[in-house]
Amino acid sequence: MLGALYILAITVEGMSGALAAGRRNMDPVGVIFIACCTAIGGGSVRDVLIGNYPLVWVARPEFILIVTAAALITIFVSRWMGSLRLLFLTLDGIGLMTFTVIGVQKTLALGHSWFIAALMGVFTGVFGGILRDVLCNRIPLVFKAELYASVAFAAAWLHIGLLQTSLPEWVSIVITLGFGFTLRCLAIRYNWELPRFYYRSDRWH
Amino acid sequence: MLGALYILAITVEGMSGALAAGRRNMDPVGVIFIACCTAIGGGSVRDVLIGNYPLVWVARPEFILIVTAAALITIFVSRWMGSLRLLFLTLDGIGLMTFTVIGVQKTLALGHSWFIAALMGVFTGVFGGILRDVLCNRIPLVFKAELYASVAFAAAWLHIGLLQTSLPEWVSIVITLGFGFTLRCLAIRYNWELPRFYYRSDRWH
Amino acid sequence: MLGALYILAITVEGMSGALAAGRRNMDPVGVIFIACCTAIGGGSVRDVLIGNYPLVWVARPEFILIVTAAALITIFVSRWMGSLRLLFLTLDGIGLMTFTVIGVQKTLALGHSWFIAALMGVFTGVFGGILRDVLCNRIPLVFKAELYASVAFAAAWLHIGLLQTSLPEWVSIVITLGFGFTLRCLAIRYNWELPRFYYRSDRWH
Repeated sequence: MLGALYILAITVEGMSGALAAGRRNMDPVGVIFIACCTAIGGGSVRDVLIGNYPLVWVARPEFILIVTAAALITIFVSRWMGSLRLLFLTLDGIGLMTFTVIGVQKTLALGHSWFIAALMGVFTGVFGGILRDVLCNRIPLVFKAELYASVAFAAAWLHIGLLQTSLPEWVSIVITLGFGFTLRCLAIRYNWELPRFYYRSDRWH
Repeated sequence: MLGALYILAITVEGMSGALAAGRRNMDPVGVIFIACCTAIGGGSVRDVLIGNYPLVWVARPEFILIVTAAALITIFVSRWMGSLRLLFLTLDGIGLMTFTVIGVQKTLALGHSWFIAALMGVFTGVFGGILRDVLCNRIPLVFKAELYASVAFAAAWLHIGLLQTSLPEWVSIVITLGFGFTLRCLAIRYNWELPRFYYRSDRWH
Repeated sequence: MLGALYILAITVEGMSGALAAGRRNMDPVGVIFIACCTAIGGGSVRDVLIGNYPLVWVARPEFILIVTAAALITIFVSRWMGSLRLLFLTLDGIGLMTFTVIGVQKTLALGHSWFIAALMGVFTGVFGGILRDVLCNRIPLVFKAELYASVAFAAAWLHIGLLQTSLPEWVSIVITLGFGFTLRCLAIRYNWELPRFYYRSDRWH
């Protein structure tokens, strides 16, 4: 199940990266590159940080081909994207949760602590978007918009907690995905944001 | 002693990252994330570049909690930061030197050459700030402002040189910290800058 | 031969990085840092992604000194750079192809698949420029300008194909360099670009 969700997740995140590249008028090289960074970058950052080699896409390059296909298709269907916004945000929420659960599972399997596993779950979910935004020369959205990384962090801890119970793993995964997805949808629907920190001063760099 | 200075250093650098995030109106997720990148990013870049696993904060996650606490406290005390500018720059100078000395020590301990050790000392000191500035979508300050990386480089070589003498290690550390800190303070006081390189041409990208 | 071309390549790419730093009015620290990222960053990203330690410049720091020298010389000769544009673009094309061939060879030698080798050839060629542009706070040129990454990708596959024949390796290298260099020169001369993807919508982030 996680495998199928992972394919869905990298497809959706790849499309999100392709649209960001299109907003910067990039050519197909840029579109594909940004799409791959968005879709696969989060897991790569996680694996580089914990020294977990080979990276997923090095061992299984077909994931890159899937994201490339998603990126190229996005170029042609982008005119209809505007009206599909809600569907897209929904799929993105599923993607975020899938990445988070996978990140937690992989990090725990390597023997790391709960805290590091929760952190790596969040990194897997959000670092692709951070790379996308840095490469598109804008401030990462995840630092400003509706609850996103915080939902992933909560879901990661829920999953870690459930894994300590006698529940079968798949039940834990389903509950976590459902919880995180619902929370994310509520955050979008009701525009839940954390309070912003405003600091103005030219006196300190 | 280096351990206590390290705690001080990540606290100060974390606060500097939190203020940079506040200048971009980020939410607490962004503030914490930027603070951690600023405080712990330099050492992480160093360790990834020399393949030194596990990263410090993966082995000892309490450092992340310290920086997180510093970042959150910064949000509440930021209004008084303006008048504490000199204290802050002073602590930042101590932080820079501490990172540099730690970077040199760790790299030498892994059997690398003096030159690489000096380089890694500088990277430990400045790469956190580079990550902060890239994530905040501005040109890294360290490439433009008063002597900073160059002070770290000079201090790194001084420390390496002193380690070759018969002086006890702690004496070498104290001398290096004192030298680098003094030089940095002088650079701030008298606004010492390296000459800038200006290049204007649209004909070559 | 590849060794001599590599020296040429990092020199040219270092100069390109130095000019980009000069356009942002950086001091020598910034100029040297950007130059090194541009010249050596591509190979470093490749080696970090495939976990190939030690990095080239850690094992052989003289490459950093070469790039540093090239960067400092660039500061003094930059006024004549404008009229040398064509020479520069030509040398840059040779550099791109050299990096690509080296990236392919190194990745194949580690036992990776053809596809990953081709990808790593491209990364070696273009990631230095991506780091340069991100650090200079602009959108990477490689995602927008005349054929560049695509030429490297084609050349990488040509080289991989030729290696499967009974031709001596050096012949394969020469053919690949000649093919890629010619293609790149044609792309510059006739301004060959891939079609851009334009996407406008404020409704989807």
